[in-house]
Amino acid sequence: MSLVVVGSIAFDAVKTPFGEREKMLGGSAVHFSLAASFFTDVRVVGPVGDDFGDAEYQVLHDRGVNTDDVEHVAGGETFFWKGVYGWDLNDRETLATELGVFGEFEPKLSEASKSADTLFLANIQPDLQRQVRAQCDGAKLSGLDSMNLWIDVARDSLVQAIGEVDLLFMNDAEVRQLTEQPNLVRGARALMEMGPRAIVAKQGEYGAALFSGDSFFALPAFPLEDVFDPTGAGDSFAGGFLGYLAAQGAGAAEDEGELRRAMTYGSVLGSFCVEEFGTERVGRLTREEIDERFDEFRRITAIEGVPAS
Amino acid sequence: MSLVVVGSIAFDAVKTPFGEREKMLGGSAVHFSLAASFFTDVRVVGPVGDDFGDAEYQVLHDRGVNTDDVEHVAGGETFFWKGVYGWDLNDRETLATELGVFGEFEPKLSEASKSADTLFLANIQPDLQRQVRAQCDGAKLSGLDSMNLWIDVARDSLVQAIGEVDLLFMNDAEVRQLTEQPNLVRGARALMEMGPRAIVAKQGEYGAALFSGDSFFALPAFPLEDVFDPTGAGDSFAGGFLGYLAAQGAGAAEDEGELRRAMTYGSVLGSFCVEEFGTERVGRLTREEIDERFDEFRRITAIEGVPAS
Repeated sequence: MSLVVVGSIAFDAVKTPFGEREKMLGGSAVHFSLAASFFTDVRVVGPVGDDFGDAEYQVLHDRGVNTDDVEHVAGGETFFWKGVYGWDLNDRETLATELGVFGEFEPKLSEASKSADTLFLANIQPDLQRQVRAQCDGAKLSGLDSMNLWIDVARDSLVQAIGEVDLLFMNDAEVRQLTEQPNLVRGARALMEMGPRAIVAKQGEYGAALFSGDSFFALPAFPLEDVFDPTGAGDSFAGGFLGYLAAQGAGAAEDEGELRRAMTYGSVLGSFCVEEFGTERVGRLTREEIDERFDEFRRITAIEGVPAS
Repeated sequence: MSLVVVGSIAFDAVKTPFGEREKMLGGSAVHFSLAASFFTDVRVVGPVGDDFGDAEYQVLHDRGVNTDDVEHVAGGETFFWKGVYGWDLNDRETLATELGVFGEFEPKLSEASKSADTLFLANIQPDLQRQVRAQCDGAKLSGLDSMNLWIDVARDSLVQAIGEVDLLFMNDAEVRQLTEQPNLVRGARALMEMGPRAIVAKQGEYGAALFSGDSFFALPAFPLEDVFDPTGAGDSFAGGFLGYLAAQGAGAAEDEGELRRAMTYGSVLGSFCVEEFGTERVGRLTREEIDERFDEFRRITAIEGVPAS
């Protein structure tokens, strides 16, 4: 079983009411890879510049992530994002976006990546997502994330990209925006008609909802007293989700029970991500901690109660 | 077992993208009473004017609600609220608030109401809530709802009122506002320190969260493709919650399992409320429909899946 993810590899500068970091490892493909690495073999594809060094690679290698397809663009700078969060961590302001080598990114996948069983197209321009999807034509399971920017400037391409994957991950506001449907249930059904067999609507501090066929499932976010940095939560969620599902083998995405466990592992990884800055918490996470929190999710969602273990 | 609710009895004029009603029965005590009536005997306390007639009483009597303590103020007008909802049903604009007889409301409870086992203080001025709480000093279980207005203009009174009840129902934004705590978990803990043994944070379309002791439980809202009118959803939730709990007898509020079932019945009643305008849907609801939807909640929240019945 192997999983390949294509997306951004970045340096982030983040300030929240609880502290700040001037330059730390980030990017959608990085957060996704680290989360997924607890479940399956992961290959990460994305461009970096001269400023990306051994320390950054080490974070990925420590989790066993294969970086053979990380493209080093000589003379370039790694994608840089700077943002600030207020007390309401749902609101963030972007202070700087320097695309660097990411601006000219043309994904080139090795044969090993092309033959991966599972593919995740992290949030990049939808035409690039489609190029990657076409290269990985043997992938038995594929997922895609996007953002409001692409709905605004590349709607038709995004709709086509969505039509070519099995699973779609989106914020609930983006589901509404893309489908022009204020009701989330109707919006998710409209997205399934575009192609994907399941839609995961991410709802930030409220958790996430899963629409698959006629089924519906929703999970709250893990109740945390301290959220230090929400950056990367959605990608960590997707990494936990798709990493778990990839490890279950063919047909898992058609199994409602497996999808619900994937939702739960996604929520577990997302919750650990936000406990510290950037990749700090997930970088030293253990499988035992993941499974403990999975059990906690069973307890906090069981109407009939689950005895403490 | 009997449950008394003190709050507003009103006429509402509501416009949503799906239709409008110029004058229909509403008010927090009405929505609460109808929802609670499926579980226990309910007495409703509140003032009405000359415009409140047989047709309005009939809606309450059809559900067996005791209206002996509805105070008819001769020459007065019933509380009137007019509001409009946009496509995003989370946002509403108040177009008119005519307090009428509600502006001079001084709750007067009969001996029968004073001796009720369970008391719900719907959203009214917190000093009035305290007066009622003092009159019902034998109530073994009490709950309170409030709103942002009272946090703004009567904060100290509200804090005292909260200190005198067992259960607090509030929107999550109000939990944050009252406690000046952006983190909901910390906000709920701060509220428990004021007195209540459990806090229910209502989250609108995202459902509701329950904090009790060290326990946490969260339930999504029922996935509806058509939400016609959100007015009264929170009071219907509280009615289902407290009505169920009252029917379970002494000690139920100390039982985490009973609290979780109460959360679920509350969510069931809230979900039916919004399916049509005002009291239309709950007014003709059946216990069988309630129990079917309770089972649906088990299915949409079970990580490990629940077989369809």
